[in-house]
Amino acid sequence: MKIAICREEHFNAAHRLYNPEWNREKNREIFGKCSNENFHGHNYKLIVKVIGTPDPETGYVMDIKTLKDIIRKHIIKRFDHKNLNLDTEAFKEKNPTVEHLAIVIWNMLRGEINKKLDLKVILYETERNFVEYPCS
Amino acid sequence: MKIAICREEHFNAAHRLYNPEWNREKNREIFGKCSNENFHGHNYKLIVKVIGTPDPETGYVMDIKTLKDIIRKHIIKRFDHKNLNLDTEAFKEKNPTVEHLAIVIWNMLRGEINKKLDLKVILYETERNFVEYPCS
Amino acid sequence: MKIAICREEHFNAAHRLYNPEWNREKNREIFGKCSNENFHGHNYKLIVKVIGTPDPETGYVMDIKTLKDIIRKHIIKRFDHKNLNLDTEAFKEKNPTVEHLAIVIWNMLRGEINKKLDLKVILYETERNFVEYPCS
Amino acid sequence: MKIAICREEHFNAAHRLYNPEWNREKNREIFGKCSNENFHGHNYKLIVKVIGTPDPETGYVMDIKTLKDIIRKHIIKRFDHKNLNLDTEAFKEKNPTVEHLAIVIWNMLRGEINKKLDLKVILYETERNFVEYPCS
Amino acid sequence: MKIAICREEHFNAAHRLYNPEWNREKNREIFGKCSNENFHGHNYKLIVKVIGTPDPETGYVMDIKTLKDIIRKHIIKRFDHKNLNLDTEAFKEKNPTVEHLAIVIWNMLRGEINKKLDLKVILYETERNFVEYPCS
Amino acid sequence: MKIAICREEHFNAAHRLYNPEWNREKNREIFGKCSNENFHGHNYKLIVKVIGTPDPETGYVMDIKTLKDIIRKHIIKRFDHKNLNLDTEAFKEKNPTVEHLAIVIWNMLRGEINKKLDLKVILYETERNFVEYPCS
Repeated sequence: MKIAICREEHFNAAHRLYNPEWNREKNREIFGKCSNENFHGHNYKLIVKVIGTPDPETGYVMDIKTLKDIIRKHIIKRFDHKNLNLDTEAFKEKNPTVEHLAIVIWNMLRGEINKKLDLKVILYETERNFVEYPCS
Repeated sequence: MKIAICREEHFNAAHRLYNPEWNREKNREIFGKCSNENFHGHNYKLIVKVIGTPDPETGYVMDIKTLKDIIRKHIIKRFDHKNLNLDTEAFKEKNPTVEHLAIVIWNMLRGEINKKLDLKVILYETERNFVEYPCS
Repeated sequence: MKIAICREEHFNAAHRLYNPEWNREKNREIFGKCSNENFHGHNYKLIVKVIGTPDPETGYVMDIKTLKDIIRKHIIKRFDHKNLNLDTEAFKEKNPTVEHLAIVIWNMLRGEINKKLDLKVILYETERNFVEYPCS
Repeated sequence: MKIAICREEHFNAAHRLYNPEWNREKNREIFGKCSNENFHGHNYKLIVKVIGTPDPETGYVMDIKTLKDIIRKHIIKRFDHKNLNLDTEAFKEKNPTVEHLAIVIWNMLRGEINKKLDLKVILYETERNFVEYPCS
Repeated sequence: MKIAICREEHFNAAHRLYNPEWNREKNREIFGKCSNENFHGHNYKLIVKVIGTPDPETGYVMDIKTLKDIIRKHIIKRFDHKNLNLDTEAFKEKNPTVEHLAIVIWNMLRGEINKKLDLKVILYETERNFVEYPCS
Repeated sequence: MKIAICREEHFNAAHRLYNPEWNREKNREIFGKCSNENFHGHNYKLIVKVIGTPDPETGYVMDIKTLKDIIRKHIIKRFDHKNLNLDTEAFKEKNPTVEHLAIVIWNMLRGEINKKLDLKVILYETERNFVEYPCS
């Protein structure tokens, strides 16, 4: 049986929801106040889950300090105190919904974590709105 | 791979645990102080999870505002500031344990959410007691 | 300079807001859904704060285990899994608003805590509604 | 002795810290990543505390529903899903630090709450950074 | 479809991470400050999840009070206010990582819970580091 | 009117409660399981509150990043992953109750914060037990 280790990290970013193929009215209709042209923002709470079996010598699935360092280097440094739409490559042409942001984060982390370990991310946009990826 | 979007909502209700086929002593024995005849109550915390894939145009699995509105219309309005045993159809003849309440809520929501999307509910009766339905 | 020690406890109760000198319509108008005749309920979160100076031999203002036992004996036992309006002496003729409940609790605890120590209670009716008594 | 009633509300906004009398380097030196020109954002958590004595007829210091409506009308509507620097009158020429934002909110609410009642606000910019105003 | 009932409990313990086959330097290199020879400690938060179907007579998967009593008797009593390395049989020769502790707890509880019910534990070592066992 | 800025930080430590002038039985009688000779431990949550008026140029009472750095340098570095009784000067001869620990922290920070600013600390030993110093 496998075990998951989980690490929580945080970042604060501005964004707006927006589909460039739609006009202003359509964006306002679909995304409401989330499409405000001057942006709004969130304190994102990110939980990264790595699934495997403990190493017999250390008792670790993976050193959680290493996991923390990977998250900080590849995710927090990239997104913290940034404007997702204007300051990041990932959302130059992609709408920064919390779904898309979780998938982007998962893809960024997947390359940094040993392939033998499974990976999952949980991302809170607000205390009451969050996503889990992947989710079967 | 699918993604889950989750929304948290709250309602406050009174209830008592009680099996009408048992006498008072048996109810007291099995349900303890939860069977107090004059009721007690809880702040229920409900998390609704909808699982699917993001729409390419919106980046949404489902607009979380729509999900919030569905929960408020079909669940919060029905149960908030109510006595589950006396004021609701669902528990006229069913014991309002947190398990039953979660299943009732799931069934109420299932009809309101697109069938292509999977559905799960997590329901907290207290900070330390909660249920997840369905759970494999 | 003094120091406060604080202990958090919980109880779950049913209640309704109601002024017996008013008719049903007036109660409904003033208290809204909180006056539902069949009651609703809450998970109350109680924080008790005792203010003094640490005893030089123990380093305690007061043994927090003793404080916990006093709260459980005098407050939790009395109110947990009860109907505040029907099951308690304190609210036979008093409207169980969160303000009144906090003041009742403070008065019950005041007699049990050494008079040299100051006392304060914080009472959450929901995660987002709470009171502090006394508050200067 | 007086009692405080408290209500928690939330809003999400973008902002940047910036003193227009300083050049870009000085702003970067003093405000660090908080001065990012494309903004970042937060989920602000606001607690409003109103201090008085319960009305003998209702048992309320003030109807907490009325307090909620005042906060939503005067604060949430104004700041939620906005850019504090670009979209609000209050910060056209004032730096939107969490200190200034709390003082601005206090001043907006002071005019809406009965003068016989004292008023205090607690404002969280992140889970770990927050302010209290006024604080003696 | 099955439902999970979950119960949260807490215990406070000291420990150090340490592999007796390694020397002091190697332990320091691998486990960092977690290998401090005089120990450090944590408030562990434990969530136990039991999965089954509600009994038609009670509406319970399992009486959550019984689950609480089992956790307190078999886990809390054994680990609370203890030194995991020095005071417990389980970690006489096993490194008390949070992964190992969760697996040990799962094994202790497995024998106490009806075999027809599935079992899972979630164990928080800190607010931001936690594990889930088993996890598929 | 003054405003408080608050910063939350965390550290994990082992300790035992113990008065060296008492024998083992007396220590066990007064401090119960908290006097376990092999120690137990906690995740301490520390909130530091600094009270003053915002600087007109920055809008800061004090840069909260500076406050964070002071707390990490003088408190977290000293106490995190340590045994309070064995590894720290402060508790060589003082009983590490949460009251004493808060007062020790306050004294350590007082010398590092501008004297024109008032200072307060809130220290959680567990989720349900905490202290506030000073407290009038």
